[in-house]
Amino acid sequence: MNTMNVTSRDDALALDAADALAPLRDQFELPAGIYLDGNSLGQLPRRTAARVAQVVSQEWGVDLIQSWNKAGWIGLPAQVGDKIGRLIGAGAGQVLAADSTSINLYKVLAVALQLALRDEAGVPSSRRRIVSERDNFPTDLYIAESLARQHGFELVLADVDELAGLLDERVAVLMLTQVNYRTGRLHDMRSLNAQAHAAGARVLWDLAHSAGALPVDLLGSGADFAVGCGYKYLNGGPGAPAFLWLHPQHLQRLDDEAVWQPLSGWLGHAAPFAFTPDYQPARGIGRFICGTPSPLALAALDCGVDTVLAADALGGLAALRRKSLALADLFIDRVESRCAGHGLSLVTPREHALRGSQVSLRRDEGGYAIVQALIARGIVGDYREPGILRFGFTPLMLRFVDVWDAVEQLGEVLDSGQWRDERFQRRAAVT
Amino acid sequence: MNTMNVTSRDDALALDAADALAPLRDQFELPAGIYLDGNSLGQLPRRTAARVAQVVSQEWGVDLIQSWNKAGWIGLPAQVGDKIGRLIGAGAGQVLAADSTSINLYKVLAVALQLALRDEAGVPSSRRRIVSERDNFPTDLYIAESLARQHGFELVLADVDELAGLLDERVAVLMLTQVNYRTGRLHDMRSLNAQAHAAGARVLWDLAHSAGALPVDLLGSGADFAVGCGYKYLNGGPGAPAFLWLHPQHLQRLDDEAVWQPLSGWLGHAAPFAFTPDYQPARGIGRFICGTPSPLALAALDCGVDTVLAADALGGLAALRRKSLALADLFIDRVESRCAGHGLSLVTPREHALRGSQVSLRRDEGGYAIVQALIARGIVGDYREPGILRFGFTPLMLRFVDVWDAVEQLGEVLDSGQWRDERFQRRAAVT
Repeated sequence: MNTMNVTSRDDALALDAADALAPLRDQFELPAGIYLDGNSLGQLPRRTAARVAQVVSQEWGVDLIQSWNKAGWIGLPAQVGDKIGRLIGAGAGQVLAADSTSINLYKVLAVALQLALRDEAGVPSSRRRIVSERDNFPTDLYIAESLARQHGFELVLADVDELAGLLDERVAVLMLTQVNYRTGRLHDMRSLNAQAHAAGARVLWDLAHSAGALPVDLLGSGADFAVGCGYKYLNGGPGAPAFLWLHPQHLQRLDDEAVWQPLSGWLGHAAPFAFTPDYQPARGIGRFICGTPSPLALAALDCGVDTVLAADALGGLAALRRKSLALADLFIDRVESRCAGHGLSLVTPREHALRGSQVSLRRDEGGYAIVQALIARGIVGDYREPGILRFGFTPLMLRFVDVWDAVEQLGEVLDSGQWRDERFQRRAAVT
Repeated sequence: MNTMNVTSRDDALALDAADALAPLRDQFELPAGIYLDGNSLGQLPRRTAARVAQVVSQEWGVDLIQSWNKAGWIGLPAQVGDKIGRLIGAGAGQVLAADSTSINLYKVLAVALQLALRDEAGVPSSRRRIVSERDNFPTDLYIAESLARQHGFELVLADVDELAGLLDERVAVLMLTQVNYRTGRLHDMRSLNAQAHAAGARVLWDLAHSAGALPVDLLGSGADFAVGCGYKYLNGGPGAPAFLWLHPQHLQRLDDEAVWQPLSGWLGHAAPFAFTPDYQPARGIGRFICGTPSPLALAALDCGVDTVLAADALGGLAALRRKSLALADLFIDRVESRCAGHGLSLVTPREHALRGSQVSLRRDEGGYAIVQALIARGIVGDYREPGILRFGFTPLMLRFVDVWDAVEQLGEVLDSGQWRDERFQRRAAVT
């Protein structure tokens, strides 16, 4: 997919005609317009509405409480977790779909801090630092700060280029989001895992902007812990359950030492239906279930994950990754030619190895209003402070012609100065 | 509703004909059979399927990310919370619908323990006990034990009659479920609040088996904190979001002292869309939001809560309570006459003031199998160890004739010894 030679809309159409992944688009309900925000909320799979209706009307409405067994509701967190595991290089029984990313991070980071207090032989450690990126997604920093305050750890924030220099004998956990939500910058997971391990630290990855967007190899790269989001590239629907993963060697240690995760709810008990007053954590990943899960939400997430797994027969995430980079390359090329002179600068690294599946542009004036003016034309991106116009390229359903048309619209918004219109300046509650 | 004189099925039908609450039944999709398990999973409201379909197909599928503003997704936790507040004697802006009961308990109890460390003037306190009932629902005990371990508190468990005697200067929080999940026993909220306050302790109530089932007056009774479940008497669907409440004087102190709740996710930040690296809790109840909520699940819960609020015009929860007691009275009377000599004993207190909306029977042999044999006949109750047959009486949709028919079936199961059949002995994964 060489996008270098695309100089007309017809060229873009020709790329689409040659795209082996094009049939994957038919998995989705696609409204009018061009949606470049799948990195914020993935689009609706065609199967989801019927599946959710089945859960509501038959499983809940008719079979009621018996659906925990009959419809297998009780197994959904592990089953959907296993499917997600196939997308992130995790083994069966290592991933759980549950709760929100923030809550899962709380559970997993709390355990990571506990494990850091002493080694397998019980020798105490003085590692009391959590290192992260200053520009990490705020919820990760807020949750880490909460745990640090509670348990006597220190959260140390640094710019991306300073991270490696901070990895020393004081660090318990390096906590990073693989793809930065604002800049789209991609960390080298394998290299950072190796650097952290060389310093005796463990690494916790937030895969919010990478799971389902690009190949992730948790086991192969030597990662320790991970959490991630169900409603972005996994297309699980708004507020979908998130997921969590732990390396089997850490799960084993949790078993051996009977470690609790702090949100020790009843469904994470070794025998939840014995209803005993004393908590005994379930073995393995099961202890990370807390309260009663939502079969509606898990069924929707299951449909979303299936849309990504459907790419397996067409080259899987490697093929999706090639297409998303090509879509983004075309976007960058087109913005730089069609929108030249309008004060847009590229925030996302140009190098493939350094970026995820989104492209962020910066304009010091009017960034928010430009995004609003685009939305009014059916081109949906989003805005993040300071001055960032953010566009996501989800290869499951986006076409090269969509990229062409989106940049044309962006050019018209800028050429016309239409974004200066007052109605595009008003901030909504959610931006 | 005097059930003393019901000696025939026609008498039961006559009570139904005279029941002013009978029209509320039409709010639900009711499958064949008699469902006596609304205390475990409430039934499906008629409006829910269409509302959920609207969220999936239009709000998610078409409007996508814009629905956070356009469809008001961002406001749902507070809006649905306010509706629940009307059912439990809470004021506007004091209740939030979010996460699971276990997770909400973790947030609220953690804050309650923090507030107990010192008084409003900053004077340290030596209160380090959480007192609860040994037979409280296990998840409450597990979460309390986790917080106690983390923060140097002690969880002290006692039988129901010993609770008052434990309230002394060592107690930070008395944590109780208002209606016991196993026995159906109802605590006197007002009296226990007063006793705890006299001892300088605060009271946290789990309303899982009372919200939507009977009148609850959190503010009027002097309660301090509460959590509760969305999928039982609130009919919010399996795994529905739960809720939490704090007395406004405690919310005020959280504001004054900038107290964090431990699950400090991004949507509980004072300015979530500023995306700053430092956490600043939102004022009031807003800080108890953690990650991104599920609009699907909240829409379903909203429909469920509406089915209870619909009783307002017919006498509200006081009228629902009268009917549920009458249904349960009839059940007890009928079991004692129709099933006499079959070894069933009444676990739930007979006195109205001492019971919630369920009736628990005990039989030392075959309890589980009897429930399974009833389910095979379309009469759905559930079983809890040890030997407890549990039947819930949700007055929104149950009829007196249902109670009559259910007990007839129970009698036949016992008379015939059918429950001894091998197929009724096999335990399912979820009981």
